Amino acid sequence: MGSWCSSGNRHVATEGGIPKAMTFQQRHLLDIESLTVDELTTVFDLADRFLEISERPIKKVPTLRGRTVVNLFMEPSTRTRVSFEVAEKRLSADSVNISASGSSTSKGETLLDTVRNIEAMNPQILVVRHGEAGAPHFIADRVDAAVINAGDGAHAHPTQALLDCATMRRALGSIRGREVAIVGDIAHSRVARSNMVALSKLGARVRVSGPRTMLPPHLEDFGVEIVDSLPQALEGVDVVMMLRIQAERLGNKCLFASTREYARTFGLTNATLELTKPEAIVMHPGPINRGVEMAPEVADGPRSVILNQVTYGVAVRMAVLYLLAGSPPVE
Amino acid sequence: MGSWCSSGNRHVATEGGIPKAMTFQQRHLLDIESLTVDELTTVFDLADRFLEISERPIKKVPTLRGRTVVNLFMEPSTRTRVSFEVAEKRLSADSVNISASGSSTSKGETLLDTVRNIEAMNPQILVVRHGEAGAPHFIADRVDAAVINAGDGAHAHPTQALLDCATMRRALGSIRGREVAIVGDIAHSRVARSNMVALSKLGARVRVSGPRTMLPPHLEDFGVEIVDSLPQALEGVDVVMMLRIQAERLGNKCLFASTREYARTFGLTNATLELTKPEAIVMHPGPINRGVEMAPEVADGPRSVILNQVTYGVAVRMAVLYLLAGSPPVE
Amino acid sequence: MGSWCSSGNRHVATEGGIPKAMTFQQRHLLDIESLTVDELTTVFDLADRFLEISERPIKKVPTLRGRTVVNLFMEPSTRTRVSFEVAEKRLSADSVNISASGSSTSKGETLLDTVRNIEAMNPQILVVRHGEAGAPHFIADRVDAAVINAGDGAHAHPTQALLDCATMRRALGSIRGREVAIVGDIAHSRVARSNMVALSKLGARVRVSGPRTMLPPHLEDFGVEIVDSLPQALEGVDVVMMLRIQAERLGNKCLFASTREYARTFGLTNATLELTKPEAIVMHPGPINRGVEMAPEVADGPRSVILNQVTYGVAVRMAVLYLLAGSPPVE
Repeated sequence: MGSWCSSGNRHVATEGGIPKAMTFQQRHLLDIESLTVDELTTVFDLADRFLEISERPIKKVPTLRGRTVVNLFMEPSTRTRVSFEVAEKRLSADSVNISASGSSTSKGETLLDTVRNIEAMNPQILVVRHGEAGAPHFIADRVDAAVINAGDGAHAHPTQALLDCATMRRALGSIRGREVAIVGDIAHSRVARSNMVALSKLGARVRVSGPRTMLPPHLEDFGVEIVDSLPQALEGVDVVMMLRIQAERLGNKCLFASTREYARTFGLTNATLELTKPEAIVMHPGPINRGVEMAPEVADGPRSVILNQVTYGVAVRMAVLYLLAGSPPVE
Repeated sequence: MGSWCSSGNRHVATEGGIPKAMTFQQRHLLDIESLTVDELTTVFDLADRFLEISERPIKKVPTLRGRTVVNLFMEPSTRTRVSFEVAEKRLSADSVNISASGSSTSKGETLLDTVRNIEAMNPQILVVRHGEAGAPHFIADRVDAAVINAGDGAHAHPTQALLDCATMRRALGSIRGREVAIVGDIAHSRVARSNMVALSKLGARVRVSGPRTMLPPHLEDFGVEIVDSLPQALEGVDVVMMLRIQAERLGNKCLFASTREYARTFGLTNATLELTKPEAIVMHPGPINRGVEMAPEVADGPRSVILNQVTYGVAVRMAVLYLLAGSPPVE
Repeated sequence: MGSWCSSGNRHVATEGGIPKAMTFQQRHLLDIESLTVDELTTVFDLADRFLEISERPIKKVPTLRGRTVVNLFMEPSTRTRVSFEVAEKRLSADSVNISASGSSTSKGETLLDTVRNIEAMNPQILVVRHGEAGAPHFIADRVDAAVINAGDGAHAHPTQALLDCATMRRALGSIRGREVAIVGDIAHSRVARSNMVALSKLGARVRVSGPRTMLPPHLEDFGVEIVDSLPQALEGVDVVMMLRIQAERLGNKCLFASTREYARTFGLTNATLELTKPEAIVMHPGPINRGVEMAPEVADGPRSVILNQVTYGVAVRMAVLYLLAGSPPVE
């Protein structure tokens, strides 16, 4: 899409291509709530630099050379794990993958013992994906390594929100004052939750919509507007963020009549997309259920920035890894 | 085997150990059909250089430093995956493995979405193994990254054919005019198919043999001779290539009476090997069913180049990776 | 724990931080029996150096650059595999993982063919974990690569014993003359077996204890004292090494009445720990069954060096990898 290339007029003092004098005081990245607006901006600015590096023939910087990063995935995830692994390798880190299947947890070890054991090997950073909300916080309180939450239950997925906002900022030039619709299974989506927090901080106005059974209680606390129908959600927005219907997460609970019914009521098509601003962008965290959340014509259409999100995913994760570990060695 | 060391008198102009002015115009390596004889020769010459590197104490060149290579294996394969991974690491690439189990395909994502997502992370090369014939071509038509077919259904396994021919050329000094027997389950073998094409291009004469139920229709179109019995296949040949009986591929179809019956009729022994030329070599793509396709005495005998094939596998894959990505950056 | 930092007064001539003129004549590391006391000391001295490297910001040395190390794990093990992988990467080796699931063994290939195939790719070192006692020896007899036994059945786990002894030496200053209690399922424990051999060589006095059904015949041959009760085992010792109750290994055989009964009879608590010397250390190879082999208060208490063992695990494995492959290239 055309607007992808015009990245606005943000100027950042740099040293060897990496911004210096950055505002980032976090030891971990556990949720969006903990970050200031300046810290969010630091991540986006740095991600823009790393995006350039990812487009060079030699996509590698020595920043994390000799640092060990452990990707501890206690819940299956190929795309997030690969995105982190690519980011780590482009920063020259030593990247080690541990997945739940085959790990000591199957031998009855507690999560804390697993993590303490990993930490005893002196990794700089632990990237943690876990099915239970709060697991990364629990870990971060008990280890010296920096912890990055790569998704915990229905709670948070901060790097996803960061990459979504970085993609928006790049595509639209700015986030403040933008109208963003988030549509789908809000209640079970850590992506929605982290984005609502990030977008509110950054001054966007967020509308959410979805089947009543998929809207969590106290949604108003996030400072978002709840609307009943897809047309109301889309009317005049700058950004449409469609959520994945996570059938595998819903179990047997019948939260909507049928996939067909969902697609008819909340699925995005070129027709309903007419309701947005003409230059509005379409986002999705992936993987897409084509024909459910959105028609293929939308997913592959000129307004879709879905693959840009994936590209930014690597850049944003490089930025976060850099900020948490890449600063000049303490010693 | 003695002939292994005499690599003939091929001279190649080199720069830093790597041949220059090579003929190779392909963007992808999808099948052998697309390659010219000059391109085949380029791969073999380059593989010979990389073979030397693989025998050095420090088996590493910086060719692909900063390049990401994704190994997307949608069908289990340890030996091919490991061969590619070793090749990639010796070229200093950042190598990332994705296997079907645990990938987003289990969440219902289409192959194309999976691949587009991978591509959005800017890999230089995608190595694709897939159970369906044509999947790598489908992918190559839709991505910017170079695609290497690491085996697709019963269709093609071009790097296997390249390593087989490179092994033959090294062991025999030349391929043109050589008599090659390919024996076994031709119908289900992508290895046979790719080798028949490669060997015909390179001017070898190929005989194939196997149980009638394992010979595909229109086999004559490959320019090969079909013979009924193992003795006819072996008579006076320079090369015997025994195929693996892929029991796991055959499902419940009873294509031959029994393993014992197969071994008796088409299994290679020292006795039947007497029918070949005295200096004939024995090949097998592995893994061997000892006592089925061939007697252990043959697999481990002086004429076997089966392990040389494995060694050449790494070198040929380094050559292909180099040719598809290692040329001086476009920038 | 306080004694952790006082590493005694061992002086080693070094070159670039790595001791030189080391005594180590082994081609493989298969068991502790094969090592001389001088060789054990060489590993410990070198591990102390690598421990320092693991505590630097940049935890990487170029020792194994361009060397391929294959981790062949035919039995699941996350912690040992990760420890080796981290060690290999910190030595700059190209590290390739092969696990049994998904390997060619599921296609019926023999262990020897699997290993020969791996070896044909010219790895410098094979790290082998296997469910059958003797498998690494079998392999070492048949390949040119150096083989490290990462645990074979109930036979040996030499790197575990080396890291245990290195941890003891560091914590206590010396091993000779020390009293060590090993408690638990001695019969099924390769950790116990390798430690009994190592500790005897190093001049420690070893007492073992556990349920009668978990003591193997001919235990006296290891030069250890067998005592009936936990109090007898603990009385005045310098080191308590508690073994994991490997429920998954015992199958359905009822070797003790219940977990509760085991904990009551052989579980370590702060109360029973009073019987040891005041400065005694507590060890465990992990993963711990909290409340079975030992109370959480002990595992997390001031005498526990369990996490130091994990830290030393990486350092000891770096030392072994270095000794088997890191010597100046032969060419």
